[in-house]
Amino acid sequence: MKRAYGFDEVALVPGDVTINPDQTNIAFTIRNLTFSTPILAASMDAIVDPNFAILTSKLGGLAVLNLDGVQTRYEKPEEVLAEISQASDAEVTALLQKIYSQPVKENLIAERIQTIKQAGATCAVSLIPATTKRLAPVADEAGADIVVVQSTVTTARHISKSYRGLIFSELCQMVSMPVIVGNCVTYGAALELMRTGIDGILVGIGPGAACTTREVIGVGVPQVTATMDCAAARDTYFEETGRYVALITDGGIRTGSDLCKAFASGADAVMLGSILAQAKEAPGKGYNWGMSHPNPALPRGTRVKVGARASLEQLLFGPTSVTNGTENFVGALRTAMGVCGALAIKDMHKVKMVIAPAIKTEGKYFQAMQGMS
Amino acid sequence: MKRAYGFDEVALVPGDVTINPDQTNIAFTIRNLTFSTPILAASMDAIVDPNFAILTSKLGGLAVLNLDGVQTRYEKPEEVLAEISQASDAEVTALLQKIYSQPVKENLIAERIQTIKQAGATCAVSLIPATTKRLAPVADEAGADIVVVQSTVTTARHISKSYRGLIFSELCQMVSMPVIVGNCVTYGAALELMRTGIDGILVGIGPGAACTTREVIGVGVPQVTATMDCAAARDTYFEETGRYVALITDGGIRTGSDLCKAFASGADAVMLGSILAQAKEAPGKGYNWGMSHPNPALPRGTRVKVGARASLEQLLFGPTSVTNGTENFVGALRTAMGVCGALAIKDMHKVKMVIAPAIKTEGKYFQAMQGMS
Amino acid sequence: MKRAYGFDEVALVPGDVTINPDQTNIAFTIRNLTFSTPILAASMDAIVDPNFAILTSKLGGLAVLNLDGVQTRYEKPEEVLAEISQASDAEVTALLQKIYSQPVKENLIAERIQTIKQAGATCAVSLIPATTKRLAPVADEAGADIVVVQSTVTTARHISKSYRGLIFSELCQMVSMPVIVGNCVTYGAALELMRTGIDGILVGIGPGAACTTREVIGVGVPQVTATMDCAAARDTYFEETGRYVALITDGGIRTGSDLCKAFASGADAVMLGSILAQAKEAPGKGYNWGMSHPNPALPRGTRVKVGARASLEQLLFGPTSVTNGTENFVGALRTAMGVCGALAIKDMHKVKMVIAPAIKTEGKYFQAMQGMS
Amino acid sequence: MKRAYGFDEVALVPGDVTINPDQTNIAFTIRNLTFSTPILAASMDAIVDPNFAILTSKLGGLAVLNLDGVQTRYEKPEEVLAEISQASDAEVTALLQKIYSQPVKENLIAERIQTIKQAGATCAVSLIPATTKRLAPVADEAGADIVVVQSTVTTARHISKSYRGLIFSELCQMVSMPVIVGNCVTYGAALELMRTGIDGILVGIGPGAACTTREVIGVGVPQVTATMDCAAARDTYFEETGRYVALITDGGIRTGSDLCKAFASGADAVMLGSILAQAKEAPGKGYNWGMSHPNPALPRGTRVKVGARASLEQLLFGPTSVTNGTENFVGALRTAMGVCGALAIKDMHKVKMVIAPAIKTEGKYFQAMQGMS
Repeated sequence: MKRAYGFDEVALVPGDVTINPDQTNIAFTIRNLTFSTPILAASMDAIVDPNFAILTSKLGGLAVLNLDGVQTRYEKPEEVLAEISQASDAEVTALLQKIYSQPVKENLIAERIQTIKQAGATCAVSLIPATTKRLAPVADEAGADIVVVQSTVTTARHISKSYRGLIFSELCQMVSMPVIVGNCVTYGAALELMRTGIDGILVGIGPGAACTTREVIGVGVPQVTATMDCAAARDTYFEETGRYVALITDGGIRTGSDLCKAFASGADAVMLGSILAQAKEAPGKGYNWGMSHPNPALPRGTRVKVGARASLEQLLFGPTSVTNGTENFVGALRTAMGVCGALAIKDMHKVKMVIAPAIKTEGKYFQAMQGMS
Repeated sequence: MKRAYGFDEVALVPGDVTINPDQTNIAFTIRNLTFSTPILAASMDAIVDPNFAILTSKLGGLAVLNLDGVQTRYEKPEEVLAEISQASDAEVTALLQKIYSQPVKENLIAERIQTIKQAGATCAVSLIPATTKRLAPVADEAGADIVVVQSTVTTARHISKSYRGLIFSELCQMVSMPVIVGNCVTYGAALELMRTGIDGILVGIGPGAACTTREVIGVGVPQVTATMDCAAARDTYFEETGRYVALITDGGIRTGSDLCKAFASGADAVMLGSILAQAKEAPGKGYNWGMSHPNPALPRGTRVKVGARASLEQLLFGPTSVTNGTENFVGALRTAMGVCGALAIKDMHKVKMVIAPAIKTEGKYFQAMQGMS
Repeated sequence: MKRAYGFDEVALVPGDVTINPDQTNIAFTIRNLTFSTPILAASMDAIVDPNFAILTSKLGGLAVLNLDGVQTRYEKPEEVLAEISQASDAEVTALLQKIYSQPVKENLIAERIQTIKQAGATCAVSLIPATTKRLAPVADEAGADIVVVQSTVTTARHISKSYRGLIFSELCQMVSMPVIVGNCVTYGAALELMRTGIDGILVGIGPGAACTTREVIGVGVPQVTATMDCAAARDTYFEETGRYVALITDGGIRTGSDLCKAFASGADAVMLGSILAQAKEAPGKGYNWGMSHPNPALPRGTRVKVGARASLEQLLFGPTSVTNGTENFVGALRTAMGVCGALAIKDMHKVKMVIAPAIKTEGKYFQAMQGMS
Repeated sequence: MKRAYGFDEVALVPGDVTINPDQTNIAFTIRNLTFSTPILAASMDAIVDPNFAILTSKLGGLAVLNLDGVQTRYEKPEEVLAEISQASDAEVTALLQKIYSQPVKENLIAERIQTIKQAGATCAVSLIPATTKRLAPVADEAGADIVVVQSTVTTARHISKSYRGLIFSELCQMVSMPVIVGNCVTYGAALELMRTGIDGILVGIGPGAACTTREVIGVGVPQVTATMDCAAARDTYFEETGRYVALITDGGIRTGSDLCKAFASGADAVMLGSILAQAKEAPGKGYNWGMSHPNPALPRGTRVKVGARASLEQLLFGPTSVTNGTENFVGALRTAMGVCGALAIKDMHKVKMVIAPAIKTEGKYFQAMQGMS
């Protein structure tokens, strides 16, 4: 058994050269699309609606609109979202189940995409594997720039009696836009997925020790190791083909520190979920929730109060009033790249890390002081 | 000194292929008996009575009736069980000591077995080593299907002045039914036990770090390592003889995650104790208790309130209303096998695990969120 | 840097053979003196007075009388002891400093020893290095059976301007009784000490992670590694000379589990301090305290309430009413030897251990249950 | 990835020889200046003012006066310091920002240095890299004995668009006094810095697991490993050139134990911050605060109440009334050197350490007792 590491267990080693943070370049690219901010907003109904997608695009990042949620099930999703955020704790589970039992409407897919595109923003959308074959062409035709096909664990080969599995190589032929697929965590699974012709890959399954996936079924790989292994697959595939598939670490990132370590582990970008649910502009209005899981016998995720505590711009770029690393993620990345001597994200991939567990000390006093002396 | 691992310290790695959970096969076999659900109910008075055994059998599993407890000491065990569950905390220890000082009656052994058999259920019974030679033939003649001989630590060789140790090879000759023996945790002890001709082996001694056996006498091996080592002995023995001895991991399983890891470590089935004491149908009526230990100078276990929180069917198959992995154990196993690409339990034995300690984070908020993003 | 292990980080592995606990032999020997119970009572004023020494001897163990404490400074130590146990928390530190500033009286040394000897008990006494040369002959002449020379860190070579260091080889010539010396924790220091001709060695410096020595000066080696390393020195020395020096693990033992692990690490006996201060017969009357340290600038130890919770016999041999391993230490040792297949202490030295950290789980319910299922 | 260790994870191993603490020599040298106490007071406004510098010098140590703080921005810094310590929590952040926006006055630099020199004390001053070229000659001319150029992460090579980086080799030519530079944590960065001709090096970046630098940007190396790696660079450089650069471990030291381990890891001296802020003579009057960070988007450090609990002399030399290692740091060092057999600091560098994590036990009772038995 190999030891796998999470964000809490490693630390970045400063470089022999340092760079002024304002000289670092943090852009990342998916096929022919380049983004100045290497951060994706997760395709969750509490986080991304068309307005949030437009705002994210203006700030240089990329928000992914969930085509399997309230935006495409309801003409007026804002009413449904208001219902969720106003429901009592007692009634919210039943409400969520009712809301997500409505069918997805194809005309709404086109409508949402067009709203985003008309604002001049880049439009990424997400689908679950079961509906991808049917709906990806709809999104493609409506002008979506990127499609994300996402499930908890995704492989290039899926064995099923009930339906013929989604063939990613066929999907890549079927749509003109870049395809991002996930999630995966191993060298083997990542390499096979890349060989289907996809343009990006999402890394992260059961990333946190306290993650539901790990608690319920015991499956998961901590994110530092998962990202490193998938990055090795990306590099192997690049050597073989000359094609560079973007690696996006998704899940488990709670602080600027975690984000910096994801890049040092090999990520080209990161996908943020619960952090961005705290943006004042997020449609969840201070709440976040998971969507109903395909298998109702193993429910995962209920509505959680996260608080709408800062604007998206402040979360990404500061200024920050907190000292715990939960704001100004871009500033943290640039500062880390500066002290590690990384001019671009690809230099950050080469930064050394040490294994240095975050043992919690009890003396709160010393915790506060250590940042000073 | 070798490092030994427990459930909390490892995680399963998803496969390169995934499988729909409904296509997985989780059956397991003891000699010529096959069970569709690879879960045994521990032979504790608070868990298994004839009704519970019949119900478990209907659900595809196997309950083990304790032939050294209230069922065989009392004509009307339900009265005694009611006394235990109604006793105050102050009086319960004395009550338990009194209750378990009554002798076991051979006629009741036959009676309980026949009740189970007449319902068409498979009947497994347990004995302690000291009474096995006398009572195993009684159970065999009464129609029991499987006999479990269980003590905290069992080896094929036991040195004693006071009595001639139980010889397992003689026992296997003496009874026609399959024999399961335990508990053991090492390659050597497991291999020696298998060579006596037994059909199943129970793995688990002092499995948890907080286990009484480890706290009082310092003895124990965490379950992942114990199961792996005994599984290696099973495989060695199978290569030598062509006979496959069933490996049953017993103890330390608290969640679906733990259960999945037991199978990935090499278990053919698992034995659940405290989890099943929480079934509404369990005779303990929301309580569980250890039996008086042979050595009264080192008492272990008192009555513990566990709560009768769900039906046995719900505990095993869901649907579940909780997200912490303490319900729908079969669903968890099938889901894990699906994402790990294991069609049958023997494929699950080959699933990779990583060492990934469950470091508890303090931010409850992030714990709730990580399962989502 | 080598990894060092403490009691909490290892567990004993059961054997391939098991033995009935009543057939185990736990005797240990210092030169020509054999004790049926391999437990020494630490030379602390709160633990050992002549009555306690006599009682311990009757129970097969060995209590060490502190010749540098109240017993030899006061004609009527019981009055002084009563003062300490009755003092308020506010006044006790000053009181202890006053009490221990009285000089040691040589005539009292002889008197205390004779009290113990006249009761037919074995008499062990302890001295600090600075007074050993002067007082060891006094004790020897008064009939003491064993002398223990103890300081926090003891080596065969000590560099000092102010006094010529105690030469242990000279001490061994000077007195007829066996000499025990300590404490030490390394192979090198233990071997050098043995070569001076001593009969026993105390192992333990800063054993616990929370130990004052480790907190104040950072010095210490966890007890499993310390005992293993010194046991290797003992075995080397035995091979070289044929003389077997008794190894006594001193400090850090809190439970039966710890005690069993000390023997598995190589101890021939253990010295217990705080545990025995809880005996109803201990002169501390439910309190324990450290003596004033030679260097007043680094005080260590104040009076601590420990509670007088059980008789010495019950602490050593049970029966016990607790399930946390803090009573019936001898029963725990015999049970562990039984399941590990060790007939005598020297067999226990060969028992395998695994590294299996005691990660604390939060679910108290599962902690209680794990000992059962 | 290499494992890196912090103070909490290691322990010192006692020697085969012991030495009386009063015979140990703890002096350390920077170029031609020798200090009898190897402790530097960190250049923080809450810790060092001219009076504190004079007192530290009398006690054999070295205080570093911050030339970028209130002492050089204000004619009457005592008034500003009083304002800070009297401000409410709500207003203090704004107050600190206002206070530190005043410009540094060159005439005050000379004045403060002269105050210290006229008292016969050694005067060390600190500068940030951006102002060093301009102000170091001013300090040199005013009679400063040592200049410290300090930033969070310092390398010999810094890439910047906005200003030409500080060239340390030029600085060493420019001023006659010894130059200390920091902070760094790696062999490579330390070696490059030494090759610029500097006389001392500060080790420590993000030392603590709870450190703000690690939490916000994920960068840091625990101090045992950082000190060992930089000490290896110092030794390499000494072998190459015959010039011995003083290594000063800065940050993360909370107790005497930590301090002793810093020396055993290779430090020639240590720099203390938050500990010395607790001195009654410290100008922070029981408070400590970080200075405004160059990047206001990532603020670090606010005002923290530390309490003015003992005189500087007592903190350094005792006597101490506490048993947790937070007073009498010099006594702790001498005692550790004594039991480890180290006559001088350079012998302390050779003392063995073991990896022995400080796992916190829950039983407070045993924690108190372990120091005794």
